[in-house]
Amino acid sequence: MKPINVGLIGIGTVGGGTWTVLKRNAEEITRRAGRPIRITAVADRNVELARQVTGGEARITDDAFALVKDPEIDIIVELIGGYGVAKDLVMQAIANGKHVVTANKALLAVHGTEIFTAAQQKGVMVAFEAAVAGGIPIIKALREGLTANRIEWAAGIINGTTNFILSEMRDKGLSFADVLAEAQRLGYAEADPTFDIEGVDAAHKATLIASIAYGIPVQFDKAYVEGITKLEASDIKYAEQLGYRIKLLGIAKRRDNGVELRVHPTLIPAKRLIANVEGAMNAVVVKGDAVGTTLYYGKGAGAEPTASAVIADLVDVTRLATADPEHRVPHLAFQPDAMSNLPILPMSEIETGNYLRLRVEDKAGVLADVTRILADQGISIDAMLQREPEEGEGETDIIILTHVCSESAALAAVAKVEALAAVKGQVKRIRLEELQ
Amino acid sequence: MKPINVGLIGIGTVGGGTWTVLKRNAEEITRRAGRPIRITAVADRNVELARQVTGGEARITDDAFALVKDPEIDIIVELIGGYGVAKDLVMQAIANGKHVVTANKALLAVHGTEIFTAAQQKGVMVAFEAAVAGGIPIIKALREGLTANRIEWAAGIINGTTNFILSEMRDKGLSFADVLAEAQRLGYAEADPTFDIEGVDAAHKATLIASIAYGIPVQFDKAYVEGITKLEASDIKYAEQLGYRIKLLGIAKRRDNGVELRVHPTLIPAKRLIANVEGAMNAVVVKGDAVGTTLYYGKGAGAEPTASAVIADLVDVTRLATADPEHRVPHLAFQPDAMSNLPILPMSEIETGNYLRLRVEDKAGVLADVTRILADQGISIDAMLQREPEEGEGETDIIILTHVCSESAALAAVAKVEALAAVKGQVKRIRLEELQ
Repeated sequence: MKPINVGLIGIGTVGGGTWTVLKRNAEEITRRAGRPIRITAVADRNVELARQVTGGEARITDDAFALVKDPEIDIIVELIGGYGVAKDLVMQAIANGKHVVTANKALLAVHGTEIFTAAQQKGVMVAFEAAVAGGIPIIKALREGLTANRIEWAAGIINGTTNFILSEMRDKGLSFADVLAEAQRLGYAEADPTFDIEGVDAAHKATLIASIAYGIPVQFDKAYVEGITKLEASDIKYAEQLGYRIKLLGIAKRRDNGVELRVHPTLIPAKRLIANVEGAMNAVVVKGDAVGTTLYYGKGAGAEPTASAVIADLVDVTRLATADPEHRVPHLAFQPDAMSNLPILPMSEIETGNYLRLRVEDKAGVLADVTRILADQGISIDAMLQREPEEGEGETDIIILTHVCSESAALAAVAKVEALAAVKGQVKRIRLEELQ
Repeated sequence: MKPINVGLIGIGTVGGGTWTVLKRNAEEITRRAGRPIRITAVADRNVELARQVTGGEARITDDAFALVKDPEIDIIVELIGGYGVAKDLVMQAIANGKHVVTANKALLAVHGTEIFTAAQQKGVMVAFEAAVAGGIPIIKALREGLTANRIEWAAGIINGTTNFILSEMRDKGLSFADVLAEAQRLGYAEADPTFDIEGVDAAHKATLIASIAYGIPVQFDKAYVEGITKLEASDIKYAEQLGYRIKLLGIAKRRDNGVELRVHPTLIPAKRLIANVEGAMNAVVVKGDAVGTTLYYGKGAGAEPTASAVIADLVDVTRLATADPEHRVPHLAFQPDAMSNLPILPMSEIETGNYLRLRVEDKAGVLADVTRILADQGISIDAMLQREPEEGEGETDIIILTHVCSESAALAAVAKVEALAAVKGQVKRIRLEELQ
């Protein structure tokens, strides 16, 4: 059996993991793929590191652009990340007729349409299981496992760093800042954690999920992105008392007139399986009209879990490399000529439940005013919690959970509540999903 | 686009669901598959029912054997179950060059090797996602999503009836017999529930999981099968007090010298996600050496969830129908010429933790004798619980959890403990898995 030759670009954490796993499990992987899968060349700026990892068993270069035109290479694995050089490399690899496997969610969420179109024209595959939820085969589940279904929604814990932080805040009652510092010390958060904690990474992944679920082009620029930096320990505690947990969810939801695509902290019922996904673990829940609710859980990051997804893609490409390009699995689950132009809805039109925390003067009539405002906006109340004020304290917290209403109604109500004299400061609002 | 023509054999619950979903979601499914997928003919003994369901939109026959040689049909969907007629139909469909989609776990667990070999020779696909865990794409996850991994073990709640019964026994503290009667009333258990409650159905599915995980031929006859009929409410309660839940698991585990393949009630830590899978839901946990622990959860039965898997297979077959047969996804994940002869281990060689419940005289020295026996067999104790005897009661229960030991050591220890004069009746033993 002639080996399939892989050119690996970037031999950092995931690249190193890919090398290690491919070598350790070579025998089994070959038995599954039908041909040996061999990394024959590696491009990395750190040539010395590449030499160390590969121990002289692969050609090493610091010129990735040479690799993508190397006639010996069948598949390029791109693991350097980012939009710049990575895009040029992927586009050139495609132009040279090479299949591409990538973990680069940012690249695909922004330039996916251009990349997939080019790949389609050249008859090559671009596989990206590793781009969403690490080792969990969620792309495959959505693109192939649930093809019978009209996907109603998908909601996922798809960023391990923020889930670790939220789990720790809840467990230990600590503030966001304290836990972030701890997470950085433990290596669960990067020195510059912006992409994670501001929700950008999750939004890249949610963009890809939405595309595959609904057959729409990738539209990262239309995603609503809100991170966890403003979450307070008290909100996590109040949510808990009401039977909810707060998770950073990436959500894609089908509505009659479009698709909701959003990332934000979300209250979810504590009894849902996904509410119990703790630490750096990832999970995605998908609701299909036929299958009902399904859940996929596993490690969303790390060298070997991500390598597991990269190599699964390599096996897929190897198994199907000789197939008629018109009869492979389409990149975005739907055939390229059957994509939908269902729009991403503006945030004002999305619908969720709401958690509202109000700081109020402890006097009669406040609650009546607040509930009147909500009723006037057509917002009905699902649950309420009023903290008993401490001895001599003149103010207290009121927590209100609302049923589903539109974002615009919620914002209008919040503005009016904040204008009440008895309400102090801003109302804290967190969206709520029942995930049923 | 020329439609792909499907012949449906059996239009009962799942067949009816397949018809309904394929029709309801025809537009989306076509956009995914690249061609319309059309059930053009249905074979069922109940011709009248078939007419009602299809409303005149498909040819109806009571002669399934005519269908499998119908030159217009590209794919046969077999949904009648059982080993007899179903086997003949599947084999004839293959001989006639038709792809086959089936939900028939019993057939494949027993005759899979013969069927897959014939399919391989004819260059057709036999797809069976619906045979294991209903709508959960677990076959695809194992066969394609986790191909990078050496699978260490897979353990699943893969029978909804028994999970419903166990959930109800725990929730309501009821006996097995009472809950079974309730489950039959509610339609969660069949009039003759033997296949479910004795673990046979789960063992069929576990057999298929083991084959795909390890590239070994299906060997249902070597599976150890133990159902839930002897479970008592008190054991569920004691397990709970020790932080465990009891689930009926189908387990495939790799050991150096072979594969463990077994179905039996199992204590698992209550904090594991899978321990919280309640009611008729299914879930499978897979541990790979690279990816770590992943979990797949959803509905394991029912018309539309199972139809979801049947149709996913139809889409797969449609997408890959023109591919070179040598370069499709292999039926059992490994290439047919690369199967392993790793044996299924005899039960005496398997290793698990143990839950032991002893009825003992309430007097000094009993515990010392018991722990001595365990130590002599090399079995170490992980936890112990002694029920306080009621006033005037001369006997009490001792519960012991052991660390992992061999089945033969556990059985030898139990025999010796039962021979103690102070130990009354039989020792109740339930196996325990940490699932880590």
